Amino acid sequence: MRNKKIVGAPSVRRLPSYLDIIRDYQQEREGVEYISGTRIARELDLESIQVRKDLTITGIVGRPKKGYRVDALVSAIERFLSWDTLQDTALVGAGNLGSAILGHREFALHGLNIVAAFDSNSRKIGTKVHGITIMSAAGMDIQIRNFGIKIAILTLPPEQAQDAADILVRAGIEGIWNFTTKKLAVPDTVAVQNEDLSSGFALLCVKMRTRK
Amino acid sequence: MRNKKIVGAPSVRRLPSYLDIIRDYQQEREGVEYISGTRIARELDLESIQVRKDLTITGIVGRPKKGYRVDALVSAIERFLSWDTLQDTALVGAGNLGSAILGHREFALHGLNIVAAFDSNSRKIGTKVHGITIMSAAGMDIQIRNFGIKIAILTLPPEQAQDAADILVRAGIEGIWNFTTKKLAVPDTVAVQNEDLSSGFALLCVKMRTRK
Repeated sequence: MRNKKIVGAPSVRRLPSYLDIIRDYQQEREGVEYISGTRIARELDLESIQVRKDLTITGIVGRPKKGYRVDALVSAIERFLSWDTLQDTALVGAGNLGSAILGHREFALHGLNIVAAFDSNSRKIGTKVHGITIMSAAGMDIQIRNFGIKIAILTLPPEQAQDAADILVRAGIEGIWNFTTKKLAVPDTVAVQNEDLSSGFALLCVKMRTRK
Repeated sequence: MRNKKIVGAPSVRRLPSYLDIIRDYQQEREGVEYISGTRIARELDLESIQVRKDLTITGIVGRPKKGYRVDALVSAIERFLSWDTLQDTALVGAGNLGSAILGHREFALHGLNIVAAFDSNSRKIGTKVHGITIMSAAGMDIQIRNFGIKIAILTLPPEQAQDAADILVRAGIEGIWNFTTKKLAVPDTVAVQNEDLSSGFALLCVKMRTRK
């Protein structure tokens, strides 16, 4: 049951913003071949040694004075995160948070493709949210299997989260991105990422305190 | 301009969930005096040495065999995070994500008290979202000063984020919790916590890959 420890979790967390910076740089300067760790660091207000260290987990090696080949760097990050192909994903719970996630334009650039959304509220079923038709949670297991979906985002009330997770796991889901406060019990073979909104607020408060 | 590095950011991130576990434990067993690091670890599927190490940043010392005094542990975490008093906060942008945050019941337990919410959409102004009346963004600076608010949550479109941040800083805001993808330029004295939703998805994907 113990969660396998992710080596360099803080580094992994920073990779999506590196990807954004690199892509912006690529667009601004058509045909540019190299980008330096220092440039990425400057954009994100980080130390350049930190950026270089983070990027080593993807296996890429930079060239002294030149930096990283832009194409190779994008590929290395995408491959490391399995974002080189879009991951078909189901969203469970189309309330405010679920709707915000359905409308988050950046996800498409980050390997995330929401292909199905479910809710148990009959007034929502059949309506469209950001282009996705909300389906009944009652038929969720069959739809998940039909679509061959392996990732689910949980944005429903915490008291419904475990029941939903049980159904999702039986339907073949291999990864759950859990936005509820419920700690889920799932088999060892299923990965869970708990998104605790308060974590960021804790960091902000500590930053504010150390600034005084 | 360089962001001051937060010592032990991953530890800080975990503290809110420790607080939840400890409070649940306190409620379940009225009058209980001690809680062990091992128990907290088991609830969260972490190693107990990790939990003990995380808790040292708050300055608390446990007793061998017994663990931590429950009351002292709650106080130590709350004091470390400045959550011993509720922080009055303004929310800027009452779209789906903003509404989800206004309705997030757990924030009240985590030192966060949203006392004002702003939007520029005239159809939203004057309506109530989860009990909070949405005010016009046009009068934001005056209201922030009136309320003496020091923290702002940005949940508006990224292209409006820098303008809003400029107004907020002039109105005396000291901490910005930024849910937009825009990297903000603010004075050194203002703390910014960027919330990148894709970070969690990156971690989930790496976990799924290492599980295969």
